Amino acid sequence: MYMRKLTSQVVCNYDDPVAETKKGKLRGVKIDSTYIFRGVKYANSKRFHMPTPVEPWEGVKEALTYGYCAPELNTPVPHDAYNVPHFWFPQDEDCQYLNIWTQSLDQSAKKPVMVWMHGGGWFSGSAVEIYSYDGENLSVFGDVVVVSLNHRLNALGFFDLSAYGEEYKNSANVGLADLVAALQWIKENISAFGGDPDNVTIMGQSGGGAKVLSMLQTPAADGLFHKAIMQSGGASNGRNKNEKKLAMRLSELTLQYLNLTPDRIKELETIHFYDFAEAVGYALWTLNQESGERFNWGPQYDGEYYMGHPLEFGFREESKHIPLLVGSVFGESNNNYNVKLAEGSKNDWDEALQSKLMTDLYGDRADAIRSAFIEAYPEKKPVDALFIDKRSRKGVIEFVKARAACGAMPVYSWLFNLESPWLGGVVAWHNAEEPYMFHNAQYIETAYIPGVSEKLQDIMSGAWVAFAKTGNPNHAGMPHWDAVCPDKVPTMLFDRETVQKVDFDQKLMDLLPDPKPGFSGSGIMHAIFGVEPPKK
Amino acid sequence: MYMRKLTSQVVCNYDDPVAETKKGKLRGVKIDSTYIFRGVKYANSKRFHMPTPVEPWEGVKEALTYGYCAPELNTPVPHDAYNVPHFWFPQDEDCQYLNIWTQSLDQSAKKPVMVWMHGGGWFSGSAVEIYSYDGENLSVFGDVVVVSLNHRLNALGFFDLSAYGEEYKNSANVGLADLVAALQWIKENISAFGGDPDNVTIMGQSGGGAKVLSMLQTPAADGLFHKAIMQSGGASNGRNKNEKKLAMRLSELTLQYLNLTPDRIKELETIHFYDFAEAVGYALWTLNQESGERFNWGPQYDGEYYMGHPLEFGFREESKHIPLLVGSVFGESNNNYNVKLAEGSKNDWDEALQSKLMTDLYGDRADAIRSAFIEAYPEKKPVDALFIDKRSRKGVIEFVKARAACGAMPVYSWLFNLESPWLGGVVAWHNAEEPYMFHNAQYIETAYIPGVSEKLQDIMSGAWVAFAKTGNPNHAGMPHWDAVCPDKVPTMLFDRETVQKVDFDQKLMDLLPDPKPGFSGSGIMHAIFGVEPPKK
Repeated sequence: MYMRKLTSQVVCNYDDPVAETKKGKLRGVKIDSTYIFRGVKYANSKRFHMPTPVEPWEGVKEALTYGYCAPELNTPVPHDAYNVPHFWFPQDEDCQYLNIWTQSLDQSAKKPVMVWMHGGGWFSGSAVEIYSYDGENLSVFGDVVVVSLNHRLNALGFFDLSAYGEEYKNSANVGLADLVAALQWIKENISAFGGDPDNVTIMGQSGGGAKVLSMLQTPAADGLFHKAIMQSGGASNGRNKNEKKLAMRLSELTLQYLNLTPDRIKELETIHFYDFAEAVGYALWTLNQESGERFNWGPQYDGEYYMGHPLEFGFREESKHIPLLVGSVFGESNNNYNVKLAEGSKNDWDEALQSKLMTDLYGDRADAIRSAFIEAYPEKKPVDALFIDKRSRKGVIEFVKARAACGAMPVYSWLFNLESPWLGGVVAWHNAEEPYMFHNAQYIETAYIPGVSEKLQDIMSGAWVAFAKTGNPNHAGMPHWDAVCPDKVPTMLFDRETVQKVDFDQKLMDLLPDPKPGFSGSGIMHAIFGVEPPKK
Repeated sequence: MYMRKLTSQVVCNYDDPVAETKKGKLRGVKIDSTYIFRGVKYANSKRFHMPTPVEPWEGVKEALTYGYCAPELNTPVPHDAYNVPHFWFPQDEDCQYLNIWTQSLDQSAKKPVMVWMHGGGWFSGSAVEIYSYDGENLSVFGDVVVVSLNHRLNALGFFDLSAYGEEYKNSANVGLADLVAALQWIKENISAFGGDPDNVTIMGQSGGGAKVLSMLQTPAADGLFHKAIMQSGGASNGRNKNEKKLAMRLSELTLQYLNLTPDRIKELETIHFYDFAEAVGYALWTLNQESGERFNWGPQYDGEYYMGHPLEFGFREESKHIPLLVGSVFGESNNNYNVKLAEGSKNDWDEALQSKLMTDLYGDRADAIRSAFIEAYPEKKPVDALFIDKRSRKGVIEFVKARAACGAMPVYSWLFNLESPWLGGVVAWHNAEEPYMFHNAQYIETAYIPGVSEKLQDIMSGAWVAFAKTGNPNHAGMPHWDAVCPDKVPTMLFDRETVQKVDFDQKLMDLLPDPKPGFSGSGIMHAIFGVEPPKK
């Protein structure tokens, strides 16, 4: 991490540390025990086209600073930058960069490799957007090679131009293909960074979880990874059945806005990004107006490059051997910082207020939900029933059962439940587990609880690392963790006390009303629909 | 700092810590001993208009995350993000925010206040752009209140529309007026953060040094600050005598590009920033083509709001009582990372190569310069004569002499000379002193030298704090520091050994060739000239 207190001389010389990739040499830094290579180019690309390998080079290239992040269609809004500390970095279409943290540059070291795919749906974010993503502490703690990567997002990654020529056949999946290109680069080069190309775990949160899942359903990624971890994302099938039609109409509207006839399609490859983004913003807005439907950026099922969500299209045989670790967090975006039901700290609300809020929210099911909540969570305060996530947790349960039922390799389920002392108590929010699995909890203001965090991050990072090493998350420092069966879901609950419980919250989930469709985090809605009205 | 290892529970409750400003209450955080308030709004504004005070509010507002940074005309290029680690944050025209670090919220504590004005010329950067700017460690070390601020930059801060109506009279100085508004807010509110409104030191580096100097020459700032520190900026008069003419032509070209006639000038206040920026980019490019001159963003002399650079217009009587601390660094942008004269580490270059490079660079003065360099810097390696800065250092000498000669209060001169071990040795670059005066050297990869940094940052932060407290930088932990006389310039050299030398480099400065005009850091040229050719 850039901003942690250094205790020894950083090594960063012309010839040390240097790693030799297949295409040329890279110069990084060594900080205490960790070698860090930032901003390593893993592919090139032309707009709307599949990624291509990097060219060989002479001499030693610098890998000291992060690479450009993928451009976003809208200016980011720092709406959750306190509980989820953010780091923004310049954006450019030239964005296929990855970062590496490792304890060894020995070609024969064969350390497990853990590859982080960032969140932000398929439309925003980057490998460095969230402070917790920094891989140094996880690399040190687990003696593993940590990799994080940027790739093309939103209209640059998933714009359907298939109607405009064979060369754009995959344009709706090039952002997905970037992920494959990164895994291909890792396969070919990670041994130069002490990593084992035959033991690669992919992991990601939110949109990153969906990215991880998509790799299981992408034939081009077969053989490039061996284990997978999904955090608060990917389990539910968010696909719109009309996505192909919507995607094609979106392209049509974009061209119309730019006054580009199909014979001038090539011009779309070179116009300034802001002009393209403005046109796409208009097209998204118009598409929503005329169809009443929601268009999601993301990979498009084509039965060839991408085989679709397994709950709709089935798990591919070729990736059934991949062990999975799948989970979510207690509150997700329904936490009591994002959702303000009343003034002050939830833990100060009196019985009368709690009762009123429960009834406001759950109507005549309020008492039953309260009872089911207390039964499922005897260690929690009943007020927390107001802020429990259903969307992600229900999706996880359905997904892990289906995975176990398909005869695939082990799948393990988890839930992160630690309450932050912030504001007198905030239930675990979307992203709250990241500081813990990355072993960075002591660096995040709203994560750190003295005496609690040190222990929990050892347990949780330990499980992630054990899983990366062997496909089984069990380790000596935590209770025994059973794999999911088709008819039984053991879940590891990470909290002040970490315990496994079996089918403990099914009754509660059944009672909770279904969440409203769409994102509950309003701050990101604009990036999906393009709220700016047309200007021309 | 966000990413330093926490050792105790961060306090961040609904009612603690809370500070009460004149307009309403703010909720911050307490981390160990430090209260931090981020993203505090100090003013509002309409585009091209003077800032206005914030409105009063009910309840408690959050001050947990940084505020928006001023929009830049061009996408930033992370060209120096390794030696000067950068932090980027979302940009918006609503950018008048400041951040506060303090050890006390006692209204009567009256701690010295140190206000940081960021660099990046007058066209880029922010209060959080550079990691070293973080104020926590300086606040702890010196028991002072540290404030950093954002304000309007480039065309949003300094666009001359005076020809288009009385209401735009000050449009070429509104970015300067934001600085005054911030100081006004500090005057009125800093006691709520334990600060002494009657002991405010303003400080800044590069463009920030120029901002500090401009405050001495702005009548509206009189009485709002009491001491001033200039670091690698402000000493030289960079004003173009034709600036008013160029500024007015720039506005004309911008309107032309947008097809806006003067009667539609109001529309310029509300068009999308990207459209405005594109037009300004075109206008900058055209202006440069037709005039052959360079237009600098920055405050405009009008003899009323802004009184111009003192070396051209004289020091104002009203600010002659302000003590000054003025200096620069050894290499500035002429360091051996930015300027690559040969392969490998400079400290490995043999005599023959050094001799050749000296002759290439200095011609028949090479031997004389080498001798003068060795005389001035017996502790340095002769090879460093290839990378010594003349531009800033010569400016500082001229400036401090003029200041001393005008009968003003004490002015002290300094030079930061510490070589980084990075790449086998890099001479001190532009920004290299910031980790040291902010007491953050242990957090910056290219700054930290075990055993050396701890001592030097105590000395340097100590001098800055002593100056903020009393107007005199001397403290017990360093050699005696004399004020400048009109005919004698004692300079404190901050290095592995900190020593004062008197007129020690005059001969060397006289021998060195004058630097080429303009910025030597090519990465920022595009932000000045607008390299994008016109598209319409």
